[in-house]
Parts: sequence; structure tokens; C-alpha cells
Amino acid sequence: MPFVKIELTREGVTREQKRQIIKEVTDVLTNVLNKDPHLTHISIEEVDTDNWGYAGEQVSVLREQGITANKK
Amino acid sequence: MPFVKIELTREGVTREQKRQIIKEVTDVLTNVLNKDPHLTHISIEEVDTDNWGYAGEQVSVLREQGITANKK
Amino acid sequence: MPFVKIELTREGVTREQKRQIIKEVTDVLTNVLNKDPHLTHISIEEVDTDNWGYAGEQVSVLREQGITANKK
Amino acid sequence: MPFVKIELTREGVTREQKRQIIKEVTDVLTNVLNKDPHLTHISIEEVDTDNWGYAGEQVSVLREQGITANKK
Amino acid sequence: MPFVKIELTREGVTREQKRQIIKEVTDVLTNVLNKDPHLTHISIEEVDTDNWGYAGEQVSVLREQGITANKK
Amino acid sequence: MPFVKIELTREGVTREQKRQIIKEVTDVLTNVLNKDPHLTHISIEEVDTDNWGYAGEQVSVLREQGITANKK
Repeated sequence: MPFVKIELTREGVTREQKRQIIKEVTDVLTNVLNKDPHLTHISIEEVDTDNWGYAGEQVSVLREQGITANKK
Repeated sequence: MPFVKIELTREGVTREQKRQIIKEVTDVLTNVLNKDPHLTHISIEEVDTDNWGYAGEQVSVLREQGITANKK
Repeated sequence: MPFVKIELTREGVTREQKRQIIKEVTDVLTNVLNKDPHLTHISIEEVDTDNWGYAGEQVSVLREQGITANKK
Repeated sequence: MPFVKIELTREGVTREQKRQIIKEVTDVLTNVLNKDPHLTHISIEEVDTDNWGYAGEQVSVLREQGITANKK
Repeated sequence: MPFVKIELTREGVTREQKRQIIKEVTDVLTNVLNKDPHLTHISIEEVDTDNWGYAGEQVSVLREQGITANKK
Repeated sequence: MPFVKIELTREGVTREQKRQIIKEVTDVLTNVLNKDPHLTHISIEEVDTDNWGYAGEQVSVLREQGITANKK
């Protein structure tokens, strides 16, 4: 009976990306824990960059400074 | 000192329904636990159907397929 | 598709009280929103009184001072 | 490795106030726990006053009655 | 900057299973969103079966009745 | 009406440190937002290092490798 809450910054995640996250995270839990997928719910919360802090700074300020969260 | 977080899909819940949920859930906690209602806070988070996953699928896709969450 | 998280201080809530909360809160959501109860999950998190703060003070300290959360 | 979630009612919190909260709460955790600030994330969720309940009543209704949350 | 909270019932999940969930869920987010994994934190909360409700009933009661969450 | 949830790894945080966090975080919110402290609740959740993931790895494994979260 897992419930998964994913919080991430609102920076243009598409409907298709959300669908893929929902499918793949459910698959991980189903496979690793042998759980019925009908008992798995996932909620994605997109948070404005003004409302997320990292290392003491607002993410919207970090983005203005050219600092991204992208994989290198 | 209860804090209650209710996450549900954003599908037309009215202001009056939210008010009723707040009142009745507070009553349950107050009655069962004998708690002062002034120490009970409730937060309702409405989640877009694109952002909720059930059984590995996006709820907005399930709705397009005619699958609802209604009581039978 | 509601998910409900109830956080409260760990102060002797019994198994039967938890069962009653689960039943009655599910009933509220089912009735007010007309939702299928099989889509409603509830998670109760009991928090040590050392780990809960109210009005800037640790609840365990408030309890030592004789301040309770009981309904008057 | 702290993650901090702050839920508050959406009542005109400014970008600058959010920035100050992010900075100061990170400082508290960094100082008290001696944690690397790069491991501290903060997410602020603003909740509509229709969606927050206090003492069994919707906050939007309390506000219409002239009841505020202001420090006295 | 994702933070993922996974709540599931405390029913014998092993350290190795948790490690696998952490690795694979991080991989999903890293791949789908192209995010730096150093910005992804995951917290797993195991909830006693007395404290989880499904369809209005305590999971510990469901388990006593022989009802499991296993994949069929 | 803020509710603050602080999740951190269970690594020997003392009762006094928790009390200090509760006091100082409440002060930040009270001062920045001009909120009545009696409407501010804080819940601290200590998470086992087996249950926290960072950059795709279990924190307990990182600790075995000598990697800490300490401020440098």
C-alpha cells in the first residue's frame, strides 16, 4: 500500500513526462515489493521556484544567476 | 495536536464540500481523541489529474477512458 | 482518489481509536465527495512529544508543565 | 539531510518574505545541527483559505468574520 | 530538485529492497527530467499496519482476515 | 497558520537541539509573517539512514563509506 509524493520545481515538466514518471515509479514499487499496482497512488506536486529553497537560497534567484539543476 | 493533510484530485470539489470535510473530520478527531479543536488544523491539497497516478496510469488518462472514482 | 495523512502526538492512542478514525474519516470523504472507498487511503503518523512544537515550545515540555491538548 | 515543508495560507506572502524564510530556516538547521546547507531543501506550499481548516472552520469563513492570524 | 516521500506499510521491507527503491526511483527522475541526482532526496516512511487505513478498514485487520497487498 | 514538517536523518539529534529548532523556526515564521505563534505547529520526523536516499544511494551506505552531512 504505497503512497508516493513527488515534489519538484515547476519548470516545464510535460504531461508526457509526468505520465512516464507515474508509470515507471509504480513499476519500481510493484517489482521490488511485489505489490498490487492498484494499491499504489502517486501525487506530483510542482512547486514554484520562488517557493523552493536550496542551500539557503530561493531557486528562482539561483536560476536568474544561471545555476540549473540539470544533469552534467 | 493533530494536523491533517488531505490530498485529492482537482475535480470540482466545491467550497461548501471543503467546509463540510473540514468540519466533519475535525469532529471525528475531537470526539475520538478528546482533543481541543483549536489544536486541529486541516489542509486540503487539490492535485491536477495529470499529476495523480493510480495503478501506474495518469488519472487524466483514466478519465478520458471513462473510468471514474465514483462510489458504485 | 484521496490520500489522508494524519499527524498527531504519540500520547496513547489505542488500536481501536485508530480504527475508528480510519472508518469515520473514510466515511466523511466517501459521503461528501461520493468517492469509492477503495480509492481512499489513510496514514496515521504518531509523533513523539519531543518532536512536536506548538507556539514555539516542545510539547513534551508543555506536558511537564501540565498543559494538555484535551477538550475543555 | 533535512527536507523542510512549510504549509501556510495563501494570504499575500511576498517573494522577499519567502526568500527570508528560506534563508533563516536553513540557517537554523545549519547552525543547530551542523549540517551542510547544500543538503537542505525547503518547499513552501501556499494553501487557499478555502482549503485550510482551523478549529473545524474554513479559514476563508474566519477571515470574513474578521478573525485574523496576526500576532497580537 | 525533487524530493520524494514514499509511505508504505511496515511489512518486512528489507534494507536491500529499500536500497533498490532508492536507486531505481532516483534513476527514473534523473532520466525523465534530466536532473542532477545530487539534488534528489528520497525518504521512505514505514507505517505500522495499525496506522494505515484502506477502504475504511485498518490494514492490520485486513491482514488478520487474510487479505494481502500482493500482486496477483 | 503555518504547519512545518522537518524530515531529517536519525543521527543523534538531542532533545535540546529539537527544542532549539522548534523555538527558532517558530520565531522565523512569527517575525517574517507577523503570525500568532499559537497557530504555528512543527513536526520533526527522524528517518532511519536505511530509509533516506541521496543521489541514488542509501545514506547508511554513504555513512559506512565515511561520507557525512557535516558542514565543512
